[in-house]
Amino acid sequence: MVTKEALATFLAAEFPQSKATVEALGKDSATVRHRVGVDELRPGGTVSGPVMMAVADVALYSAILGRIGIVPMAVTTSLSINFLRKPSADADILGVCKLLKVGRTLAVGEVVIYSEGSDEPVAHAVGTYAIPPKRKS
Amino acid sequence: MVTKEALATFLAAEFPQSKATVEALGKDSATVRHRVGVDELRPGGTVSGPVMMAVADVALYSAILGRIGIVPMAVTTSLSINFLRKPSADADILGVCKLLKVGRTLAVGEVVIYSEGSDEPVAHAVGTYAIPPKRKS
Amino acid sequence: MVTKEALATFLAAEFPQSKATVEALGKDSATVRHRVGVDELRPGGTVSGPVMMAVADVALYSAILGRIGIVPMAVTTSLSINFLRKPSADADILGVCKLLKVGRTLAVGEVVIYSEGSDEPVAHAVGTYAIPPKRKS
Amino acid sequence: MVTKEALATFLAAEFPQSKATVEALGKDSATVRHRVGVDELRPGGTVSGPVMMAVADVALYSAILGRIGIVPMAVTTSLSINFLRKPSADADILGVCKLLKVGRTLAVGEVVIYSEGSDEPVAHAVGTYAIPPKRKS
Repeated sequence: MVTKEALATFLAAEFPQSKATVEALGKDSATVRHRVGVDELRPGGTVSGPVMMAVADVALYSAILGRIGIVPMAVTTSLSINFLRKPSADADILGVCKLLKVGRTLAVGEVVIYSEGSDEPVAHAVGTYAIPPKRKS
Repeated sequence: MVTKEALATFLAAEFPQSKATVEALGKDSATVRHRVGVDELRPGGTVSGPVMMAVADVALYSAILGRIGIVPMAVTTSLSINFLRKPSADADILGVCKLLKVGRTLAVGEVVIYSEGSDEPVAHAVGTYAIPPKRKS
Repeated sequence: MVTKEALATFLAAEFPQSKATVEALGKDSATVRHRVGVDELRPGGTVSGPVMMAVADVALYSAILGRIGIVPMAVTTSLSINFLRKPSADADILGVCKLLKVGRTLAVGEVVIYSEGSDEPVAHAVGTYAIPPKRKS
Repeated sequence: MVTKEALATFLAAEFPQSKATVEALGKDSATVRHRVGVDELRPGGTVSGPVMMAVADVALYSAILGRIGIVPMAVTTSLSINFLRKPSADADILGVCKLLKVGRTLAVGEVVIYSEGSDEPVAHAVGTYAIPPKRKS
């Protein structure tokens, strides 16, 4: 199956702006980390919403590619996120994705997002991806 | 009411990383623009999903603050986005927000997202914001 | 194209429990009505949430079938609804669907839900449908 | 805390049309059952989408009231559901809710929906509820 290293190489090429990195990859799951520095913070000391959305997106993408193999054309079709608690300014953001369904044309997963070191999620997201049809060779 | 200039000053302080700017502000609406350059693009020439989510977030925030006044503590509680079409690599992203409800504690709005110059939306988002209770003075 | 009558016949067979009826059918839109009686009400005199979700579902389904033709196998893949205001106990519920995208395999639409006689929406929904691949004959 | 019996009595009064019953009630969770009979089925032998949405709604409501006590004025503010697999026509629908956050004014929970006897969810929902401010006595 897809290794963490192969996925990291692919993501670096595909999402050159993303600061999220893959921490772990399971059969139906993936964990990604987003370092939190001054670029991620808002006044008052909290991580901006778009950073958490980006983490959710990369976590879902990683879990799906880990499962179906590296398919460059898989695209996010929807993402729905609830913000639950104020993230810490002093901790990295972790996104833990669990796939709910991987069908022939659609994959669905949920992502629980944490400030590292806390058990209480800061956000919860659900996303869907369209999987391109297999090409005949 | 809130002027475009006052809102721009506030957003620049509140979201220092954001590249989105307010184009127009109405009673129940706001339009924001996100310049598209190399930082926004993915291989294959399309705008990344997190850019569109950030545009939706800022457009909603702008429309709400334009309506209720500049309230720094309003926070996004949820955002739901559907990606509809591939955005153009050569056009700025515009987000047009229309408020659906502004209650005492919760505001809801929708954002239609376009590549400038096209009538067909590239994404559609709905977001909710919690409005902090008025402080007694 | 699909007539209101053909669609009504199809819906009656496909959703025998549904009380929603098609009021209007456009190129990219549909309006459905759900009569409000004692079965739809909750104590305090308001229409129950599941009634509004059912209206959103039927309005989307009607708009999509009105556009692509009567395809029994189209299935809802997601529905997201925000409840905005308390519906009236004395008015029917109307759902007005506008399609946002009709692709080859996925359709997306939004539905604004009203108590008849009021301009302020009681709910707003966005749904996605999977369209089955065309069979070769 | 709230017993299953007290909650059942409340739900029967508050949602007289609902066929869902509470199976279990935990500190942060609730399980509800919806009997599946001819009223829940669509041609082809599957449970209709609105039935699953109603199950999600009641499961969330039960979990929240189980946690905060029976507060008649708590209202659903949003519900987002992804349909994952075709439910069985021969099995009851179970909804298992886990609360993600119970704040002062907002509660968020997720519901995994199953056909009884299967481990693979047929749907996954996330909902938010507005909790009315405490009245001073």
